[in-house]
Amino acid sequence: MPSAALHTVHVPLEGRAYDILIGPGLLEGAGERLKAQFPGRRFGIVTDTEVARAQLPRLTASLDAAGLNHATVTVPNGEASKSFSRLNEVVEAILAARLERGDIIIALGGGVVGDLAGFAAAVARRGMDFVQVPTSLLAQVDSSVGGKTGINSPHGKNLIGAFHQPRLVLADLDALATLPPREFAAGYAEVAKYGLIDDEAYFFWLEENQREIFEGGPARAEAIARACAAKTRFVLADEKETGVRALLNLGHTFGHALETATGYSSRLLHGEGVAIGMVLAHQFSASKGLAPSQDTGRVIQHLKAAGLPTRIADIAGDKLDADELLRNIAQDKKVVRGALTFILTRGIGKAFIEKNVAPDEVRAFLGEALKA
Amino acid sequence: MPSAALHTVHVPLEGRAYDILIGPGLLEGAGERLKAQFPGRRFGIVTDTEVARAQLPRLTASLDAAGLNHATVTVPNGEASKSFSRLNEVVEAILAARLERGDIIIALGGGVVGDLAGFAAAVARRGMDFVQVPTSLLAQVDSSVGGKTGINSPHGKNLIGAFHQPRLVLADLDALATLPPREFAAGYAEVAKYGLIDDEAYFFWLEENQREIFEGGPARAEAIARACAAKTRFVLADEKETGVRALLNLGHTFGHALETATGYSSRLLHGEGVAIGMVLAHQFSASKGLAPSQDTGRVIQHLKAAGLPTRIADIAGDKLDADELLRNIAQDKKVVRGALTFILTRGIGKAFIEKNVAPDEVRAFLGEALKA
Repeated sequence: MPSAALHTVHVPLEGRAYDILIGPGLLEGAGERLKAQFPGRRFGIVTDTEVARAQLPRLTASLDAAGLNHATVTVPNGEASKSFSRLNEVVEAILAARLERGDIIIALGGGVVGDLAGFAAAVARRGMDFVQVPTSLLAQVDSSVGGKTGINSPHGKNLIGAFHQPRLVLADLDALATLPPREFAAGYAEVAKYGLIDDEAYFFWLEENQREIFEGGPARAEAIARACAAKTRFVLADEKETGVRALLNLGHTFGHALETATGYSSRLLHGEGVAIGMVLAHQFSASKGLAPSQDTGRVIQHLKAAGLPTRIADIAGDKLDADELLRNIAQDKKVVRGALTFILTRGIGKAFIEKNVAPDEVRAFLGEALKA
Repeated sequence: MPSAALHTVHVPLEGRAYDILIGPGLLEGAGERLKAQFPGRRFGIVTDTEVARAQLPRLTASLDAAGLNHATVTVPNGEASKSFSRLNEVVEAILAARLERGDIIIALGGGVVGDLAGFAAAVARRGMDFVQVPTSLLAQVDSSVGGKTGINSPHGKNLIGAFHQPRLVLADLDALATLPPREFAAGYAEVAKYGLIDDEAYFFWLEENQREIFEGGPARAEAIARACAAKTRFVLADEKETGVRALLNLGHTFGHALETATGYSSRLLHGEGVAIGMVLAHQFSASKGLAPSQDTGRVIQHLKAAGLPTRIADIAGDKLDADELLRNIAQDKKVVRGALTFILTRGIGKAFIEKNVAPDEVRAFLGEALKA
C-alpha cells in the first residue's frame, strides 16, 4: 500500500488521545498495528452478519498472522440490533470469552455495530478499551469518531448509551468497495453536513469533487479525512455535548423523528433521514426569514446529485403525520425544559443552535412540508 | 435536628466534587436541600418494594413540601434486581417519565438499588446526575460512596456497569432504625474492613465501641463517617481502580465466589460473604506465613461479636465445593492475564495486593477451609 494514501487525524483528548487512520489495506495491516499498540492483549471482535461475510476474514487473517488471540460475536445486520437485548447478548459473549478488563473490543462494521460494540465495551467490566474499524462511509465520517455510543429505546433513538472514546480508529477505504450505493449515498449526507454547519469552502469543494468522491478517486480519502477532522474539532471543543457539539445534530432532530415514524426500517436509512432533515432545517430557517432560500436550493441540488431523498414525500410507503413527527421530536433528548432545541441556519456554513423554538411553529412548518 | 449530629465527608474529585452527609432527619430535609442544590430540576426516584414501604413516604412528603416534581420506579427487593432486564425496565421508566438529561435520579435504598439506579443514571440519555440516599448500613459505608455502579451477570457479580459519581449522598441515620439486625450486621462487615485494610487504630476503636455502634449511640454516626472518609481516601487516590483502590476488595474475592455459589440468595448476604472472605484472607495469609495467626483470631472474635458468620461452614444449606469456588474466583474481574489477584495481609491494618497467586494454592487452601 502506498503510504502516500494514508491520512491521519489525531484526536488529542487529554489522557485519551487517539488516531483516526484513513487509507487502503488497513484491515490487512490491523494485526501488526494492534500488536504494536496493545502488546499482550486479547481481542473481542463485534460485527454483523453482512460485514462478517464481506470483511471479517480480512481482519481475522491479519490477527492470526500477527499471532493475536481473538473471539468474535456476530449480531444481525440492521438498526434493530441497537437494542437492550442485543447489548445484553454482546456483553455476555464478551464475558463468556473471558476477555479481561485490559483486553480490547474491536467494532468491525457500520454505525450500528460501532454504537453497540462501543457501548458494550463501556459497560463490560465497567469499561474496556475498544477500537473502531468502520466499514461504511457513515461510520467512517461520523459515528466512529467522538466517543458517542449507545442503543435505541422505544422512546427514541440513542436514548441509552455512554460517552466512551475509542483507542484507535481504522477507516479502511477498501471496505467501501462492497458497500451498496444506497448506503454510500446515505453516508455522504454526513459528509456534506460538515460543510453546511460551518465550512462553506468545504461544501464548495464537495460540489466540485462530488463525482470523484462517488467514483473512488483520491478525493474520496480527502473528503473522509476532512470530515473526520471537522468532527474532531467539535468533539475537542465539547466532548459531552453541553454546547457547540450540538451543531453536529444539523438535520438530526427532523431526521430522527422521520426514522422513528418509519420504525428505523429500510424505508429510510439514517443518512437519508439526515439528508431530508438538513433540507428541512434550511427550509424552516428560510421560512423564518433567517436564511436565503437560494441556499436551500443549492443544498437540495447537491444532495439530489448524490442520489439522496430531499423531501418527506420521497420516503416510500404510507404518508407520515405532522403530529406524530412533532411527538417524536418532543421526546428527542435535545429537549431542554419543555422548549424545543433545533439547529437552524443563516445559510450554507452558518448553522447555529436555537433553544427556544415553539412546538406550534414546528407543527405548522411540518404540515406545509408534508404537502410538498 | 441538632446540627451537632451532622457529619460531612467531602469528596473533592476534580470537576465532580460532592458531599456525603451523615445524620438524622436527612430524608425530611431532602426536599429543601435538593431544591437549593438543583434548582429547576425534576427528580426520578428509584427504590425497592421494602424501602418504598419503610422510607419512600418520608422522601416524597419532603419533595412535595418543597414543591419538587418527581416520579418513582420501584423494583423488587433483593440482589436479583441487579439484572439486565431490571436495568432495562428502570431506564425505560426514566425515559417514559420524560426526565431530561439535566434532571436527577435519586437512588433510595440499599446497595442493590444504589448500584442499579446509579448505572441506570449513567446510561439513560448517555448520563444523568444522581443522588444516593442509602438506607442500609452497607450502602451508607460502602456502595453509595465512590461511583461504582452496576449489575450482575450469570458470569459473576458486578461484571457490567460504569464508574458514575453521585452529586450528593444523604445517609439518614433514622433509616437504619427499620433495618433488620441481620442486615445491619452484614453492613458492619464493611465498616470493620476499613480497619483491617490499613487502620489498626480504627479497628481498635471499633473493638472498644462495637456495642454502642450496634445500639445506635453517637459512636454509630462516627463509625459511619470514618468509614466514608476511609473509602473516600481510596477513591481519590485511584478512582477507576487501577491500583490501590483494589485494597477495598479485601475479603471480596472469596466473598463473591461464595455469593455466586449460593446464587446471590438470602443464604448469604453480601456483607456476610465479605465477613467470611476477610477471615479467609487472614487465614490464607497466615497459612503462607505472611501474617500472625493471633490477628486472625482477633478478626474472628470481632466479627462473631457482630453476629456475623466467619466460616464457610456457617453458611446454611448444601456443602460448597472447592473446585466450584475456584472457578468462580477465576471468572472474577480482578483476574489479570490468567494469574489470580488477591488482597492478602501482613496483619490487622496491613493489607496488600498480591497479583501472582497460583490457582492450585488457592484450591488447596479452600479444600482445608471447607473442612473447618
